[in-house]
This record gives sequence, C-alpha cells and structure tokens, in this order.
Amino acid sequence: MEIRMKPIGYVRTQESKLPRHWTVSEAEGVLEIDAQYEQGLADIEPGQEIVVLFNFHESSKFSPGSLQQTPPHRDRPFGVFSICSPFRPNPIGLSVVEVLEKDGARLRVKHIDMRDGTPILDIKPHITGTENLPSREAS
Amino acid sequence: MEIRMKPIGYVRTQESKLPRHWTVSEAEGVLEIDAQYEQGLADIEPGQEIVVLFNFHESSKFSPGSLQQTPPHRDRPFGVFSICSPFRPNPIGLSVVEVLEKDGARLRVKHIDMRDGTPILDIKPHITGTENLPSREAS
Repeated sequence: MEIRMKPIGYVRTQESKLPRHWTVSEAEGVLEIDAQYEQGLADIEPGQEIVVLFNFHESSKFSPGSLQQTPPHRDRPFGVFSICSPFRPNPIGLSVVEVLEKDGARLRVKHIDMRDGTPILDIKPHITGTENLPSREAS
Repeated sequence: MEIRMKPIGYVRTQESKLPRHWTVSEAEGVLEIDAQYEQGLADIEPGQEIVVLFNFHESSKFSPGSLQQTPPHRDRPFGVFSICSPFRPNPIGLSVVEVLEKDGARLRVKHIDMRDGTPILDIKPHITGTENLPSREAS
C-alpha cells in the first residue's frame, strides 16, 4: 500500500542557519501556498499558532540503522518515534508556527525550523484542548 | 512532484461509533506497528502522550468545493486549514493519544478518533515547549 501526496505549497526563508526545532526558533519565513488553495486559508489570522506538516525533502532514504538515534545535546540513542529527527520511516515534519501576516495565499510566520524550499503538506489549527476545538459546542 | 509514503502500521479498535476529535474522546484502541519498526518505539512508555499522524483512508478525493466546510456545531463555513475535517488536500490526520500499555510493537492507547484499519504514517513526541524537547540542553 502506498499513499501519494502533493505539496500544497513551499516554505520560503532567507535564514541560512535554522534552529533545530520550532520551540527554540525565532526565525521567520513565508508559507507560499498554491493559489488554488487560497480559499482554504480563510479564518487563519495574524497572531494565531498553526500546525504545519511538511516533507523532509532533503533527508536520505530511511534505513533500519536509524531506528534509534542520539539527538543533539543528549548522551544516548532514543527510538525514532520519540524524537524529532528528519530521518524517519515517513519523512513528515511537524512545526507549530505563529502567523505574523497574511497576504493572499502567503503567510509570513515566525518560529520556523524548515529549510527554504521545503514542501508543505498540510496546515492545521493548533488544538490544545476542547477550548479551541473548531467543532466545539456553543458555551 | 509527488511524495510517496507507506504505512508503519494500522489502528485497531472495536469502537463502532468514534468521537469526532481526540479532545473529546475516551475511546481506546491499539496502534499495531509493523514489527520492523519495533526498535523505533523505544522510549515510548505508558502514561505518555504521543502524536499520531495517519491517513484518512476512507475520505473521497478532495475537490475545490471543500475548500471551506462547516464543522459540526458551527453555523458557518471555515477554511479547510482551520478545521479538522478528513476532507483535505492531503488526507493526513493528527491525533494526540495517551499510551496505556506497550507490548512489543503494539501500543494500547486512549483518546482515539481514528477508525479501525486506519493506516498510521508516523508517531512523534508531543512537544509543547522547550521543557519537553527531546534535544533539550541539560538544565
């Protein structure tokens, strides 16, 4: 079974040295979403946090030798599903970024850890509990 | 450009009526991960929250008419990237579940909102800030 996906857009950034994770990143960039999806960006506003799923497009093919890897600043290997390594069985990345500005299908965002040219697969609301669930019941 | 992925495992659950979202779900199920990835599950322990990325395998093909959709309990359409609908340009779902038990490559979990047979694409640590970043500096 194979699942096929197409990028909905690409990350653009001029930062050459990106932090290793969104939690420690102040870097800015632009999510350039394909114009055909612009209507789908309705309700995304500056100030919001959004979840970006993307493709680690520069990662080499995964091999069993990478099932455990030692993250930066740690002294032992961890299982790949407990860390944020770009070398994973399916090379999907997840970052939470803050929207600074919206211009058509371009979102300027902060806290990125993705390289310039990274293919974007999906954008989702950042849901932390029932209080920000989009399908919440009226209170 | 096309990105190809293969399931790392499948969701198993006997619940026939699943809640619409993990934030409102007490449902239990099992993440049956392929034995070849078992070593990658090291460091996942009962009590942890994990992020599960999966394929909305029963969703019909996305069409522009679904760029805005009205979520349950709401009275107007929202942009697809601001809601959790399974009908999205790339049919990837994201749920945060709690690990109840681990047995080899089987994780029994709580709070699922995925149907039986759902293909799993990735498991990630649930990171909410630098305090639980796997690559954190020693404090």
